[in-house]
Amino acid sequence: MSDLSAAMTAVDAYLRTESDRFVEELQDLLRIPSVSAQPVHKPDMQRAAEFVRDQCTQAGLAAEIIPTAGHPIVYAEWTRAPGAPTVLVYGHYDVQPPDPLDQWVTPPFEPTVRDGRLYARGSTDDKGQMLTHIKSVEAWMKTAGALPVNVKFVIEGEEEVGSNNLDIFLEKEKQKLKCDVAVISDTAQFAPGVPAITYGLRGIIAVEITLKGPQQDLHSGVFGGSVANPANAAAKLIAALHDDKGRVRIPKFYDDVVPLTKKERAEFARLPFKESQYLKGLGLKKPHGEAKFTTLERRWARPTCDVNGLISGYTGVGPKTIVPAQATIKLTCRLVPNQKPKRIVESLRKYAAKQLLPGIRMEFQDHHGAPGVVCDLNSPYMQAAREAVAAGFGKKPVMIREGGSIPVVGSFKQILGVDTLLLGWGQNTDNLHSPNESFRLEDFHGGIKSSAHLWGELGNGSTKAAPG
Amino acid sequence: MSDLSAAMTAVDAYLRTESDRFVEELQDLLRIPSVSAQPVHKPDMQRAAEFVRDQCTQAGLAAEIIPTAGHPIVYAEWTRAPGAPTVLVYGHYDVQPPDPLDQWVTPPFEPTVRDGRLYARGSTDDKGQMLTHIKSVEAWMKTAGALPVNVKFVIEGEEEVGSNNLDIFLEKEKQKLKCDVAVISDTAQFAPGVPAITYGLRGIIAVEITLKGPQQDLHSGVFGGSVANPANAAAKLIAALHDDKGRVRIPKFYDDVVPLTKKERAEFARLPFKESQYLKGLGLKKPHGEAKFTTLERRWARPTCDVNGLISGYTGVGPKTIVPAQATIKLTCRLVPNQKPKRIVESLRKYAAKQLLPGIRMEFQDHHGAPGVVCDLNSPYMQAAREAVAAGFGKKPVMIREGGSIPVVGSFKQILGVDTLLLGWGQNTDNLHSPNESFRLEDFHGGIKSSAHLWGELGNGSTKAAPG
Repeated sequence: MSDLSAAMTAVDAYLRTESDRFVEELQDLLRIPSVSAQPVHKPDMQRAAEFVRDQCTQAGLAAEIIPTAGHPIVYAEWTRAPGAPTVLVYGHYDVQPPDPLDQWVTPPFEPTVRDGRLYARGSTDDKGQMLTHIKSVEAWMKTAGALPVNVKFVIEGEEEVGSNNLDIFLEKEKQKLKCDVAVISDTAQFAPGVPAITYGLRGIIAVEITLKGPQQDLHSGVFGGSVANPANAAAKLIAALHDDKGRVRIPKFYDDVVPLTKKERAEFARLPFKESQYLKGLGLKKPHGEAKFTTLERRWARPTCDVNGLISGYTGVGPKTIVPAQATIKLTCRLVPNQKPKRIVESLRKYAAKQLLPGIRMEFQDHHGAPGVVCDLNSPYMQAAREAVAAGFGKKPVMIREGGSIPVVGSFKQILGVDTLLLGWGQNTDNLHSPNESFRLEDFHGGIKSSAHLWGELGNGSTKAAPG
Repeated sequence: MSDLSAAMTAVDAYLRTESDRFVEELQDLLRIPSVSAQPVHKPDMQRAAEFVRDQCTQAGLAAEIIPTAGHPIVYAEWTRAPGAPTVLVYGHYDVQPPDPLDQWVTPPFEPTVRDGRLYARGSTDDKGQMLTHIKSVEAWMKTAGALPVNVKFVIEGEEEVGSNNLDIFLEKEKQKLKCDVAVISDTAQFAPGVPAITYGLRGIIAVEITLKGPQQDLHSGVFGGSVANPANAAAKLIAALHDDKGRVRIPKFYDDVVPLTKKERAEFARLPFKESQYLKGLGLKKPHGEAKFTTLERRWARPTCDVNGLISGYTGVGPKTIVPAQATIKLTCRLVPNQKPKRIVESLRKYAAKQLLPGIRMEFQDHHGAPGVVCDLNSPYMQAAREAVAAGFGKKPVMIREGGSIPVVGSFKQILGVDTLLLGWGQNTDNLHSPNESFRLEDFHGGIKSSAHLWGELGNGSTKAAPG
């Protein structure tokens, strides 16, 4: 214990000394517009991967870029702590598209600090959070010359587009990636000053539905009334997805849902959450969702069905009196643990087909899916994480769930057989996926410190924590 | 009669000699991208107006360009036939936006002849049809040195954006525009080889509804399920516009509708219309519309409610998992005679407001409106038109209605007190408002000849036709 204590003191001192450089290096990474969804950014994806690889090398890891059928994966490791647990760190260097561009106060790829926040696309999701673990490794290597645990880093470039090549990589490199537990920082604290560990995540299915009517846009006067309008047909389909209690009407949708326990509902209710403040932050007067559930329950533990994008006909300036030839719907369902993504997609496909107006044809594209997860609250790894977060942020973390999806958590369980510690350093007010995304510098540094302490806690407890 | 006959023989000969030049001059006009909806084309609007004015001058009319608060009006006249009726010719030189551009076989503003059709945006709607009346004047002036009737031309540049300044002009110039009957060629024949006179038009209301939710796009995982989604809300609103029999559910919508007479329904049923062929031409397998009405009835004499454009959230490549901040709906209702546009707009506004999900705010913009019209089938002007069309196309015209809206017909009735002869030279297969708009050259020349004969018929019958 005193060995750990001394090492941690040196590490903490190093983190204080180097903190400004850490921010500068994060800014360099944020300048690279690594938007995985947009083919035009392919060269930027390569640049971002190289930058991350170089950061790993500089930290003292053996790092390489591994090509995939899509964007490359950065792999890095340090495995010279025999007998200590092996931790797999996952993160992603790709980011969401930045539009609508005109709503950014400063450009998305020109990182800018204002009021203690670093504004840029990807600052919190996930470049900033991911980098905390590389910097914590650096701190140990530059002070103790070694880590108290073995680490393996997998930093991918396709998280925002469905991680299509990650599972292939995990399957192929199963042996190389052997580990005891995974760590991901891609979630949020409960609030500023209320650090949290996320023990549950929602899953997701994402589909794109195109409804096709006449072979081209038609004059709405000459033809209107005699043919089904694809935009009206899309509306009918979307409207059929919910009943008037906010429940999803896709058949079998709720069949596999594991309800929240009374204890969980009670613990959620105890969290310092003010709905009025939450709504104000979003510019809203009223909440909306599934009847008989609270806002936190709706966000964390109830499945949803949301349109993400919708386009049909003429969307330029002024009127254009047409019946559109087609309408396209981008749709995601957030799933809760035990719902089966494939089953839901198929049920949605059949249900959508039943809503079509006469003469409308449907094209249905299944983008990606992932099940929801709930983690073991009582594992030794979870205990180590609690201590580490408390050290990093000066306060014991609350145990929460989260509405977002991190499909890789399911893959780690299924392919590598390990649980994942979800240690989120972000905030719900970070505007991830929105204009003016930011990351609090305080959270960046708290995250690095927590990560550094996590290596200590896991290494320290290695005799009891490491599985046989 | 023999005077008329001799004059007509000379006119017809002139039309044959000059026919190629007429096509070339139409092509010159079609090269000007006079898209009234798009501010970037403002200079093109002026160029198009000047071109039309010069065509009028060249034909022997006294022509001028009259500025308005929007795009200018071309006015031209020849009024040296005392005792003969005065005919007001209306047309428009503005065109619909050409998008989607990638669906044009040849560019929209590079007129190209293929298989006897002249392809270009505006070829049939309305540059080509409008020009027929200028060319018929030219033929009379160059052969007889005079017209058998008085003519006044009003060619506006805002028909495709609601003719916002036309009524102001009509009111202001009421005296100058005094006339006995109006003529418009902006409709279609029943089919190739089946010339038609349109005696009824649908009216229109056009609105733009924007539904606003959160102040910016939100992460659909973090927030989804706890806030109303504007795209889903838009779908709910649109879906609420129709019942499952295809009837519009806006309250009071049908209150003022004058039903078709048995005789009209019987006459429509006798027209050479093949639904299967109609659908095939549109790339459709099934029709759709209000139950218990035929396709022709649905198109010509029943009111509709169609989405013309719809946009919300992310519409780029690939998925983006957001709850959109807003959704915008462009919507038009086609109205039948006796429905009141303002009343329908207000009823729609109230009805839409009732469909909103909690937390959604609505912005409602009323673009323009016009009532439907039915013309007197037995007026002497209608009789003259029947003879003229028969002469121009070699076949007696059928009497039809039309689903499109020509708001100015209502204005002529209301402000100038005159009926309008709707002499359409186009075809329903001309793709007006769609990619690959075209005008059959045969119809262009038939239209010019019909117009030339109309001047003769109206002048010839002037003693009985001219009102006291």
